[in-house]
Amino acid sequence: MPVVVYGDILSGNCYKIALLFSQLGIAHEWREVLVTRGETRTADFLLKNPAGQIPVVVLDDGTVLTQSNAILHYFANDSELLPADNLLRTRVLEWQFFEQYSHEPTIAVRRFINRFLGLPEARQAEFDAKEAGSYRALDVMEKRLGEHEFLVANRYTLADISLYAYTHVAQEARLDLDAYPGIRRWLNTIAAQPGYIDME
Amino acid sequence: MPVVVYGDILSGNCYKIALLFSQLGIAHEWREVLVTRGETRTADFLLKNPAGQIPVVVLDDGTVLTQSNAILHYFANDSELLPADNLLRTRVLEWQFFEQYSHEPTIAVRRFINRFLGLPEARQAEFDAKEAGSYRALDVMEKRLGEHEFLVANRYTLADISLYAYTHVAQEARLDLDAYPGIRRWLNTIAAQPGYIDME
Repeated sequence: MPVVVYGDILSGNCYKIALLFSQLGIAHEWREVLVTRGETRTADFLLKNPAGQIPVVVLDDGTVLTQSNAILHYFANDSELLPADNLLRTRVLEWQFFEQYSHEPTIAVRRFINRFLGLPEARQAEFDAKEAGSYRALDVMEKRLGEHEFLVANRYTLADISLYAYTHVAQEARLDLDAYPGIRRWLNTIAAQPGYIDME
Repeated sequence: MPVVVYGDILSGNCYKIALLFSQLGIAHEWREVLVTRGETRTADFLLKNPAGQIPVVVLDDGTVLTQSNAILHYFANDSELLPADNLLRTRVLEWQFFEQYSHEPTIAVRRFINRFLGLPEARQAEFDAKEAGSYRALDVMEKRLGEHEFLVANRYTLADISLYAYTHVAQEARLDLDAYPGIRRWLNTIAAQPGYIDME
């Protein structure tokens, strides 16, 4: 049995796994699980991941992995995408924790409300409240990417995969990247990496 | 110059660093930076960390580290607190990303509103809205700790430090641990580890 991924390719957190697997050539089977159909809250799914989140990866021996960024580390260990040096690994983690704490809860949630829920009246206030935080997160990225080609060191790493996932669809969150030339240049750089695949 | 920590010991994210440094015997100087005094938003502080968050650690060569869980990895690398095995390291990361995404934004934010802001009327709705998510996070922990001594493998790791920080002050977030015997047992286990220090 190959590695099985439970997820939704349109979720940035799941797309990270698809992109990594394409770039590292990891054979896998993809089983669609959609949040919008309530499929992350079924008893069967909660047995795999009590936190009720996608992606979930199941290895051939039945081992279950959760948390997109942790899954990236598992598969990229010993690859060029994860530097061996302790300080550089720490830099990758800094960006990934920033992503989960400051970037995903603002940009990805705005995108979900807008693209997948159709920006309903009941979520408008929440959508608006996340605009300032979204731009603050983009400001932090621009500060780095205005002066450097990649997020960590001078090479493509897991940090770039993690931050690319939702940044490259920021317009679906109704965010404007005009004021972020460093980010726009970086988005093109990532899309030109060997083994790159689109989200859809 | 020794390692310098910029932080507030009453912040769980900063306390993680204090606890690790005590347990690994890492000499350091602690410089108090308080969110409630606006000290994470000064121009000088933002130069250190554009994300405006504590803790920040500055090494003797001037290298700046941010993101509490990334900082733990930097200093615990090659110690017993961070297993060398790839799957066990991934397990540590799973818990730490869970902490930053599902645990800290609910439990720590409730505690901040209650303990440091005095639960003002203007924040009551937000405080209430985070109750369900707080208990969902505790449910996920109880599922593990009701059956295992520690969060990862059968030993004390960075995952325990990361989750202990805000769980052990859950009552300051007006959360009740009565229904969580596994968590309560684990809290005592952590407080009995060599080199343990209190938050205050």
